[in-house]
Amino acid sequence: MKSALSLTRRAAPALSGSSSAQRYAIPMQRHYSSQVPSRSDGLPAVDFSKLSITKTSSPKQITSPEKLVFGSSFTGKCTVVAAHHMLMMNWNTKDGWLAPNIVPYQKLSLDPSTCVFHYAFECFEGMKAYKDKNGGIRLFRPDKNMERLNKSSKRIALPTFDGEAVTKLIGELVKVDSRFIPEARGYSLYIRPTMIGTQATLGVNPPNSAMLFVIACPVGPYYPTGFKAISLEATDYAVRAWPGGVGDKKLGANYAPCILPQLEAAKKGFQQNLWLFGEEEYVTEVGTMNLFVAIKDKKTGQNELITAPLDGTILEGVTRDSVLTLARERLGPRGWVVSERKLKMSEIAQASEEGRLIEIFGAGTAAIVSPVRTISWKGRLVDCGLKENEEAGQVALEMKNWIEGIQYGDEEHIWR
Amino acid sequence: MKSALSLTRRAAPALSGSSSAQRYAIPMQRHYSSQVPSRSDGLPAVDFSKLSITKTSSPKQITSPEKLVFGSSFTGKCTVVAAHHMLMMNWNTKDGWLAPNIVPYQKLSLDPSTCVFHYAFECFEGMKAYKDKNGGIRLFRPDKNMERLNKSSKRIALPTFDGEAVTKLIGELVKVDSRFIPEARGYSLYIRPTMIGTQATLGVNPPNSAMLFVIACPVGPYYPTGFKAISLEATDYAVRAWPGGVGDKKLGANYAPCILPQLEAAKKGFQQNLWLFGEEEYVTEVGTMNLFVAIKDKKTGQNELITAPLDGTILEGVTRDSVLTLARERLGPRGWVVSERKLKMSEIAQASEEGRLIEIFGAGTAAIVSPVRTISWKGRLVDCGLKENEEAGQVALEMKNWIEGIQYGDEEHIWR
Repeated sequence: MKSALSLTRRAAPALSGSSSAQRYAIPMQRHYSSQVPSRSDGLPAVDFSKLSITKTSSPKQITSPEKLVFGSSFTGKCTVVAAHHMLMMNWNTKDGWLAPNIVPYQKLSLDPSTCVFHYAFECFEGMKAYKDKNGGIRLFRPDKNMERLNKSSKRIALPTFDGEAVTKLIGELVKVDSRFIPEARGYSLYIRPTMIGTQATLGVNPPNSAMLFVIACPVGPYYPTGFKAISLEATDYAVRAWPGGVGDKKLGANYAPCILPQLEAAKKGFQQNLWLFGEEEYVTEVGTMNLFVAIKDKKTGQNELITAPLDGTILEGVTRDSVLTLARERLGPRGWVVSERKLKMSEIAQASEEGRLIEIFGAGTAAIVSPVRTISWKGRLVDCGLKENEEAGQVALEMKNWIEGIQYGDEEHIWR
Repeated sequence: MKSALSLTRRAAPALSGSSSAQRYAIPMQRHYSSQVPSRSDGLPAVDFSKLSITKTSSPKQITSPEKLVFGSSFTGKCTVVAAHHMLMMNWNTKDGWLAPNIVPYQKLSLDPSTCVFHYAFECFEGMKAYKDKNGGIRLFRPDKNMERLNKSSKRIALPTFDGEAVTKLIGELVKVDSRFIPEARGYSLYIRPTMIGTQATLGVNPPNSAMLFVIACPVGPYYPTGFKAISLEATDYAVRAWPGGVGDKKLGANYAPCILPQLEAAKKGFQQNLWLFGEEEYVTEVGTMNLFVAIKDKKTGQNELITAPLDGTILEGVTRDSVLTLARERLGPRGWVVSERKLKMSEIAQASEEGRLIEIFGAGTAAIVSPVRTISWKGRLVDCGLKENEEAGQVALEMKNWIEGIQYGDEEHIWR
């Protein structure tokens, strides 16, 4: 017991006076994952020069772009992973990152006691590669995805990695499978970097081995026949994320628990659920997207574009960040205020009643923006500002055009 | 949109007046998973009569009981799955539960897009088989584990199953590998039923296929040389569970996020972390165990054994339930009050200062009970009532003896 006592006393100041003034008693500014060293520190890093590429001996047929819509106007996500190769990199606490390999797409063979099956040691990213008008291949803000994957990984005691090196490796994978990127506008290669714990153990411990793998599949446009506004059910009986939790990380753990509320919404004819938080019913996220609300101020009449602040309960969306940046740059000069602040569902309903709700949209990698027509809340339907014959508001339309223009290289931009 | 509108209006009463009077705006009594039909409803159920058994052709050596302690006095959990066979059962939305198989222990081969790797479609149980003094094999309250696994599975849109049929199948697995159950007291076969989503898809949807597998390994006593009291660090900067969340289910999603706070505690010499909740700093769980606190009432002088209530944030531990039941049955007549109620960390500290803190222990399948010596909280060490030469309090000692007596069949009981 001795060492525990003496160590504790030394550590005491860090524990004291933590939180009594705060609503949820959670020091929100303390982002946990930034406090601790990475488990990869001091071990060999990702080495791009060690990449080995083994190409498949049985090339697949390429699916024609028209077939890539998968029959649903609400998801452009792939249901079958169709690309041909994958990137695999193993890590362990003894050797650090081993040589990366691009290999034919293949099954993973894992012991049934592997910790990823039991304790959700898993996190991922979603990103896309686009073909520009000259046939060049572009990734959109991959540095942001690598940064976030590192944060997610660290939070669950999986290794971190050199984001630039992995971006280069993903670039090599995309090159090997570039024929799968459709050349038509709206089409892209969806890329899924995934980190899993691979230690075979039933002990609840930090995994001593992990794998980073990257798979990809061609996807069609989210809205093949133009925007289609969605309707939401506000979820007040289940909570996606909370202060001091892990809702701001892209962990597998945040996804499975969201399915039932989505099914519940779907059963009543709504395309997504809207996550509310706390007794104030703050709007947080919509399904697996960030949420943007455009409101005209009651007193000043000024237009405000609002999204929830990064308080630890909101996913740090790359599209969220892109929308905010473009809004400040291009809507600001037109008199808009752009705010990251908490917004109550009741404020939205009041703005709607008073004709001040301009528009609402979700923002995410898959659809870029998803305009919202109505929100079901406390037994009523809140009208979100679209005219009956409209499927998208002005801001959503402009955002999609601006971001797509950058993604496909029509506009030269540092994000490409 | 038509159908959404009309359906919503019908559904309106269910959405209204939900929560304003409640502290966290979460209708705590609404246990979400009990609201929805199981995804298995109407599909073929588990059929014990279809069991096929394929025995291994290369039997393993049995590890001698002395080697089963794994060098650590604080974990009796297996780090290598040593038993020989496993139970595998597949399910899909078309055929329901397919025929169960007992097969040689083997790797799982899964597509890298399988949903268990990305969205944490996974849940599990921990249970044990014991050899009694007559060589008979006993499971301890398997009905409780099956009930909880069904609740966990349903909450993440995985299939439910007939718990009795699966208990019988686990019984067959245990029989096939019975030579791995050490005959010595304190030894047992740790059994890990695990359900995973197996659909290969990157869409965030309810999986259309799943697998229930059961693996097992022999384990030694948690405290091979008698109790060793542990010391805890109270965690006030990270939150394990939240009302409306999934902290009461045994989901993989609840485990990976707990590793960093455990590492943080370990770094300062503490064996586990103690999860506090809210600005009141209610004590909830200790590491991956439930927590029991024995206090003498300030006014009446009556002894009270307290554990956190099942409010949706506490795992419904089987050992928790066993301790509560035995305490009511055997401590009640001695004048104890047994309470499931919220308890603040400050109340524990005050009781300690006033000499009214009798003892504290964790309760879980692995250790049965884990006595606690001190809790580090707000920079001080709260003494939990043990004398310097004591490693366990009276209640913890009695509970361990009572429960082990039932597990090993010394006492005939309906739980065996």
